[in-house]
Amino acid sequence: MKIISSKKELLRALNIVTKAVPAKTTMPVLMCVLIDASTDVIKFTANDMELGIETKVDGIIAEKGIIALEAKLFSDLVRKLDEDDVTISSDEKSSTLITCGKSKFNIMGQNGEDFPYLPFVEKDYQFSMSQFTLKETIRQTVFSIATSEANKTLTGELFDIRENQLRIISLDGHRISIRAISLKDSYENRKVIVPGKTLNEISKILTGETEDMVNISLTENHILFEFEENLVVSRLIEGSFFNVDQMLTNNYDTKIRINRQDFVSCIDRSTLLVKEGDKRPIILNIEDNEIELKISSQIGTMNDFLDIDQEGKNIKIGFNPRFLLDALRVIDDEEVDIYFMNQKSPCFIRDEKQSYIYMILPVNFVD
Amino acid sequence: MKIISSKKELLRALNIVTKAVPAKTTMPVLMCVLIDASTDVIKFTANDMELGIETKVDGIIAEKGIIALEAKLFSDLVRKLDEDDVTISSDEKSSTLITCGKSKFNIMGQNGEDFPYLPFVEKDYQFSMSQFTLKETIRQTVFSIATSEANKTLTGELFDIRENQLRIISLDGHRISIRAISLKDSYENRKVIVPGKTLNEISKILTGETEDMVNISLTENHILFEFEENLVVSRLIEGSFFNVDQMLTNNYDTKIRINRQDFVSCIDRSTLLVKEGDKRPIILNIEDNEIELKISSQIGTMNDFLDIDQEGKNIKIGFNPRFLLDALRVIDDEEVDIYFMNQKSPCFIRDEKQSYIYMILPVNFVD
Repeated sequence: MKIISSKKELLRALNIVTKAVPAKTTMPVLMCVLIDASTDVIKFTANDMELGIETKVDGIIAEKGIIALEAKLFSDLVRKLDEDDVTISSDEKSSTLITCGKSKFNIMGQNGEDFPYLPFVEKDYQFSMSQFTLKETIRQTVFSIATSEANKTLTGELFDIRENQLRIISLDGHRISIRAISLKDSYENRKVIVPGKTLNEISKILTGETEDMVNISLTENHILFEFEENLVVSRLIEGSFFNVDQMLTNNYDTKIRINRQDFVSCIDRSTLLVKEGDKRPIILNIEDNEIELKISSQIGTMNDFLDIDQEGKNIKIGFNPRFLLDALRVIDDEEVDIYFMNQKSPCFIRDEKQSYIYMILPVNFVD
Repeated sequence: MKIISSKKELLRALNIVTKAVPAKTTMPVLMCVLIDASTDVIKFTANDMELGIETKVDGIIAEKGIIALEAKLFSDLVRKLDEDDVTISSDEKSSTLITCGKSKFNIMGQNGEDFPYLPFVEKDYQFSMSQFTLKETIRQTVFSIATSEANKTLTGELFDIRENQLRIISLDGHRISIRAISLKDSYENRKVIVPGKTLNEISKILTGETEDMVNISLTENHILFEFEENLVVSRLIEGSFFNVDQMLTNNYDTKIRINRQDFVSCIDRSTLLVKEGDKRPIILNIEDNEIELKISSQIGTMNDFLDIDQEGKNIKIGFNPRFLLDALRVIDDEEVDIYFMNQKSPCFIRDEKQSYIYMILPVNFVD
């Protein structure tokens, strides 16, 4: 095999596909990037058997063939080459010569035939959205994925499609995050669970531009993302997701409207008094259009006050400050509405259109 | 004690003095920053008993006194306060109230009387230079300080003053770095060894501006740096430093002039083939106005070529690529001159004025 491409293009492709190279594996070939120049286009592929990424590479095929090169060495090497054309040629024993200007590197590759194919995904069920929307929505929900593997389904996010609405939902034992996206067309109802790792990795590759689109296809076992020269395919998580709708309610006894950034700053300060692993709550005392924030620990005590618009009765309620921060930080609105029922019931941070809903369970506290 | 200062000023002062707070210590009070408002000025001090830093703080003393506050908590707290005036008041039991706007924090301080004084340093022997010069010179030499504590003197840098010249010298078992600075006046000859840690920390505080000056005073046991509102005092390392002059020579059999950046890029690439801990040399083959760089390891082989101006005979010599990189990266010149004697003798990278000299020992290699 022999291909010629620019350092810049190789680096672009490597930065994308290496997101699917596993940190460790029992199959050494998976630590490689596959260079496939067996057809008329050059493709780079990486595959950890759950997540696979392929991208087309702009370049010249001087001799058809395939080769697998150790991903980290290959990426580091390309990164350190001069800005110039790079020639990669390998012989039948997988010995590979990389040349750029007067620099010559000789490294051992692995047989490309040993590299596992990406699964083929039918495109019968396909919808699209902007890369901006997908990237943002992942950021705004992925933090509340369960970290424990105890319930595998909760390590992913539910993609819940009903007609022309997609809801992306994550939850752990303490909170639920929901973002709703309007789709251009209507689709048959469908629910799939996408691994959190897949979403984290794809959000690093998405440009985040509103004018760039991404096509998403679903099959029974896979989800496929196609955008620009890239193709990302991931296994879905089997099983049924927790029914979040049973937890949601529009009833409330107290509603407050609060400046989001001020609220974030206050809570953020309070966390200085809470040592890692300490489950000390922040107490919100909502009374007569003012909220008092209180926390006390072995380290010290904090009191802070913010003006709010209040509707309904006064309430005193405790939360894990981290959970409030996680939700408030991914909301873009300058002011947020928060709904409370009582000390024992979750609060809901949501906008009027319910384009986002963040539910957080309260914690007990001693006053 | 009660003082009022702005968040911004407190943060500036804390960012400076906390450089002298030890990572761990058997004296808990050393984990604190001392707020000394017992006179007409507010001073913050930190002291790890080897290095001490004091800075004056702009603010109002409402009630004289001193208090020691845990450095990390105090810094983090100030950092997260709103941009406003901050009031710090402590009672006789060291209970301390920090208020800013509507935010109130109550934390326990420690008795300021328990905090060790900084040593008093006479200013009989004092010279000065720009902060730029000191900061740069530290950067350009500190990398070749010995990391092993086997010879304590080599964990510091020699400040060698002869008349109006200061040479700052560091060395480990494999290389020597020397930078010469011209002083404005002439001084009695003096040699002191300044701990590497002191130099690393002070270089983080120095502005690096050519118009900002720093005054340096030496006594038998201490070095004092004074600049702006700051005072940094450090113990010196006892003992006598290795006599580097016996290692220096102006004789050579080969001299080359090479583009520094190209040389750095080439060597840098070669290190990809050397695993952490592997002592594999890069081989320089200097022949007829060209230098060939070669490295080979289990990972692969590299060959690269660069044009040079050569004077004297051809030579083939091996080096630890890391040592070449360390020296070449801190030189500002576009082209550097390198002097060789033979395969077994050190090379010297130096400019004509000898404002810098980097000596590196070669390593054996099998061709």
